[in-house]
Amino acid sequence: MNGSTERKVLHIDCPDEKGLVYKTTKVLLDHGLNITSNQEFVDSSTDHFVMRTAFDGSENPNGIVKDLKESLPAEANIRQAEVGNRSLVIMATTEPHCLGDLLLRYSYGEIPAHVDAVVSNHKELESLVRAFDVPFHYVPHEDLERKEHEQKVQEVLAQYEPDYIVLAKYMRIFSPQFVERYKNRIINIHHSFLPAFVGANPYKQAFERGVKIIGATAHFVTDNLDEGPIIAQDVLPINHSYTAEEMANAGRDVEKTVLAKAVRMVLEERIFIHNGRTIVFE
Amino acid sequence: MNGSTERKVLHIDCPDEKGLVYKTTKVLLDHGLNITSNQEFVDSSTDHFVMRTAFDGSENPNGIVKDLKESLPAEANIRQAEVGNRSLVIMATTEPHCLGDLLLRYSYGEIPAHVDAVVSNHKELESLVRAFDVPFHYVPHEDLERKEHEQKVQEVLAQYEPDYIVLAKYMRIFSPQFVERYKNRIINIHHSFLPAFVGANPYKQAFERGVKIIGATAHFVTDNLDEGPIIAQDVLPINHSYTAEEMANAGRDVEKTVLAKAVRMVLEERIFIHNGRTIVFE
Amino acid sequence: MNGSTERKVLHIDCPDEKGLVYKTTKVLLDHGLNITSNQEFVDSSTDHFVMRTAFDGSENPNGIVKDLKESLPAEANIRQAEVGNRSLVIMATTEPHCLGDLLLRYSYGEIPAHVDAVVSNHKELESLVRAFDVPFHYVPHEDLERKEHEQKVQEVLAQYEPDYIVLAKYMRIFSPQFVERYKNRIINIHHSFLPAFVGANPYKQAFERGVKIIGATAHFVTDNLDEGPIIAQDVLPINHSYTAEEMANAGRDVEKTVLAKAVRMVLEERIFIHNGRTIVFE
Amino acid sequence: MNGSTERKVLHIDCPDEKGLVYKTTKVLLDHGLNITSNQEFVDSSTDHFVMRTAFDGSENPNGIVKDLKESLPAEANIRQAEVGNRSLVIMATTEPHCLGDLLLRYSYGEIPAHVDAVVSNHKELESLVRAFDVPFHYVPHEDLERKEHEQKVQEVLAQYEPDYIVLAKYMRIFSPQFVERYKNRIINIHHSFLPAFVGANPYKQAFERGVKIIGATAHFVTDNLDEGPIIAQDVLPINHSYTAEEMANAGRDVEKTVLAKAVRMVLEERIFIHNGRTIVFE
Repeated sequence: MNGSTERKVLHIDCPDEKGLVYKTTKVLLDHGLNITSNQEFVDSSTDHFVMRTAFDGSENPNGIVKDLKESLPAEANIRQAEVGNRSLVIMATTEPHCLGDLLLRYSYGEIPAHVDAVVSNHKELESLVRAFDVPFHYVPHEDLERKEHEQKVQEVLAQYEPDYIVLAKYMRIFSPQFVERYKNRIINIHHSFLPAFVGANPYKQAFERGVKIIGATAHFVTDNLDEGPIIAQDVLPINHSYTAEEMANAGRDVEKTVLAKAVRMVLEERIFIHNGRTIVFE
Repeated sequence: MNGSTERKVLHIDCPDEKGLVYKTTKVLLDHGLNITSNQEFVDSSTDHFVMRTAFDGSENPNGIVKDLKESLPAEANIRQAEVGNRSLVIMATTEPHCLGDLLLRYSYGEIPAHVDAVVSNHKELESLVRAFDVPFHYVPHEDLERKEHEQKVQEVLAQYEPDYIVLAKYMRIFSPQFVERYKNRIINIHHSFLPAFVGANPYKQAFERGVKIIGATAHFVTDNLDEGPIIAQDVLPINHSYTAEEMANAGRDVEKTVLAKAVRMVLEERIFIHNGRTIVFE
Repeated sequence: MNGSTERKVLHIDCPDEKGLVYKTTKVLLDHGLNITSNQEFVDSSTDHFVMRTAFDGSENPNGIVKDLKESLPAEANIRQAEVGNRSLVIMATTEPHCLGDLLLRYSYGEIPAHVDAVVSNHKELESLVRAFDVPFHYVPHEDLERKEHEQKVQEVLAQYEPDYIVLAKYMRIFSPQFVERYKNRIINIHHSFLPAFVGANPYKQAFERGVKIIGATAHFVTDNLDEGPIIAQDVLPINHSYTAEEMANAGRDVEKTVLAKAVRMVLEERIFIHNGRTIVFE
Repeated sequence: MNGSTERKVLHIDCPDEKGLVYKTTKVLLDHGLNITSNQEFVDSSTDHFVMRTAFDGSENPNGIVKDLKESLPAEANIRQAEVGNRSLVIMATTEPHCLGDLLLRYSYGEIPAHVDAVVSNHKELESLVRAFDVPFHYVPHEDLERKEHEQKVQEVLAQYEPDYIVLAKYMRIFSPQFVERYKNRIINIHHSFLPAFVGANPYKQAFERGVKIIGATAHFVTDNLDEGPIIAQDVLPINHSYTAEEMANAGRDVEKTVLAKAVRMVLEERIFIHNGRTIVFE
């Protein structure tokens, strides 16, 4: 994936027209830059063009984005990023598997970002977080209106101004205002089934239906709970001998793997969101 | 899986109580039979006992089931089967991938049953079926009431009295009477997604949602369309570059593999249905 | 994958230098062509550049390759292809699973090529092949020197001059001259294990070692048997209950899936061979 | 898997003969015990019988093994275990991924054993281990003969007398005497490829060969390094864009998952070793 070597990344998307790759690469060439990987995709259902270009060369040159703006159509979104410069706040409730796995990967350099802090509405995970030398903020929700609690969470987040918020089994719902505030910047993980089960206790429903596969979906959070653009998904096989509780336990393995993959894809600047779905340049 | 060597199989299920394995194996011992594999499971949510025992020894001895009935609780379901003796009719409409794969496997001995015939409401698949020397029955539905068409299908089935009906992308719905007539004997395959999509054109919906995985579920048919006990499931990864049509194409690969597996599990007598879900002794 | 819509593909590879994407896309723009997908990769271990570009626009324009040759470095390999125009000959011995699966996919349009013929050193597969209306050539090897037999195979191939030869469980070894004659144009499938087993009867060795996974590898054929550039691989889980024979049976499913995928990747012009390994733009 | 509820397990294995299941279940019935799951397998290549029986009922009754010994053939191995009573020592060198994952799972109850300590020949992992409140023993190997170092490791192990030793990327080889001392009680993880690569730097070799899949194998340690009975295996797909280093990184994910699964299978008493390979009752 060239994950370890690709640092400088350019994201471009706009309505498709002839010459977009040409115009982009001309600007990079004029700046003396060498493209190390280039992935381009045209969504034929909307005639929309997206391109991810990784390049190396001189020090981070000013003026690329400016020159691209002059060269590309006026509607083009142009974003230059340097992998490794992002910051995260992780939110969790009481389940340690996703949080612990992220912290562990962070400890050995597999999360290319700075983890600013962990925020939780419970205290259970504090010692785990402190073991990894990451600040832990306990923001209890008891005796608080939803809005009041969210306000307190906001105050903690304001200290860090993180680029992304990762919900590592954080079991509370955000207001539309909160979601809008961090649009396309909140990553969530939740269990998934074939078929899907609506309503309470999906593992119990999945058990009663005798499903043979359980899965997990990582997605950006939108107002429609669990319905935002999908970043990554995976499944694992189960069988009749799993109780609903054992299915939930087994689900932890796939949840933590899928969330970690989604976070890495986001941090390596591999994701575009277009028309409510993602384009993932793996 | 001992698939090729296990021929004689005993199925027992009843409310759990002490001594069931003991009583069963005593009868087999008294008949001079040797157990080659034995799988037993107690559904702890209903305290129900199921056991699959494969054995070899003398010629198919009479009297095992009779002696088991005397030894086991009155409620016990006891079924003795010989793998390879079953018969199938396959039904299809116009899509060749599942039907062709089943016929191909049948041609090289991987479907331990006799395929009596293929029934279709279209003519497209006739030459494929004849290529495998299997009788083909064209039962068009045009200008017929649903009931009339089903009646004609029934007449064809009556010629064969198959043990199982395999729906290899047969795109018509059966009446409750038909389903009841072949209760737990009709196997269907359909595409599956995480999340599931209800209503028309699920691949289009899946495309619009940007799913990263598509799957297939093989199940017994009940009155609730696509909701019967699940036999087998699998998925494959896709990405943003798949159009809805390409997703459907990719889905064919997993559909045919899952259906073939389900049919084999059924024919190897590995399936119990209890409380609306399957127990699959792989 | 845009498999169904991408027809015109350009392959370029050469030592990496600045401006290669720019120069290529300039030529396409000058010809009034629109790029629908573009994938580019620089092998950092050898500083080698490879690019696959799919485009649409006017009728197959002459002059693109000529103009690219003038624009790109002298060492550049430039190849223009139209997906769907290739031809295949499939070779097999007695096992029907890979051959049958390819023919089945071919019958419903999933193999974007013309299958000219099937050649076998045995007669067993003749009726299967004829069922799909594909010419079958029986070229027995008995009482012939290896060279003589290969010569007879060559004579059949000479009638067709196929672009690719697909070995669908063809169990004979070709001479270095034959391999050189069809360099990077012969696709083979063989079973694979972790760990690998050298020598006779690998399934027996895998059984004795108690492996939990069996796999298959599709690769281009080189003089080093089973060692050519890998195109595709996959595995499936097994367990202790599989005999060596059942392992071989289970292996058929993964062999046929992997071979079909490899053939499709080749025919969709997704493969580059560089430095003994493949670059696969999926 | 009934993992959370099955506590009392009986292991029996001996040459196959008629009546073994009957005799075993008779003893359990005589003791008033209820079988909750029963898995039995006859290795047809050696006519060897293995059975895993989980049961509940009264408190741990004495006398079951004694009565079984009287009832079963003299050669029968009979072992009664209580899941959750085992103890482990984990050994590691400098890589944190497998060790960290095991400790994380241990912290939330997914490793049904007591982790007595971690032993390492390096200091790097000390803070990670202490974060989970597990004793850490630093046993450096510098300036020591292999035998001397192993002796020091032995002295630490002697403090704990663990049931199992888990090698979580421990990069040193044990003497035959050490292996014999902990026969079938040392669990190791190592990377695996299709094909396998012998000698130094397998990831570099895998890169040069362009493999599309990398895997991991967990196995018991025998004198033949990396050749002991296989407990669990899994793979993940990679592609041409992975450097040798990135392949090694990706391999970490599958290594940690496979090792954790193998450890859980062992601790849940699901493994038999017969004739150099495992029988795993999942």
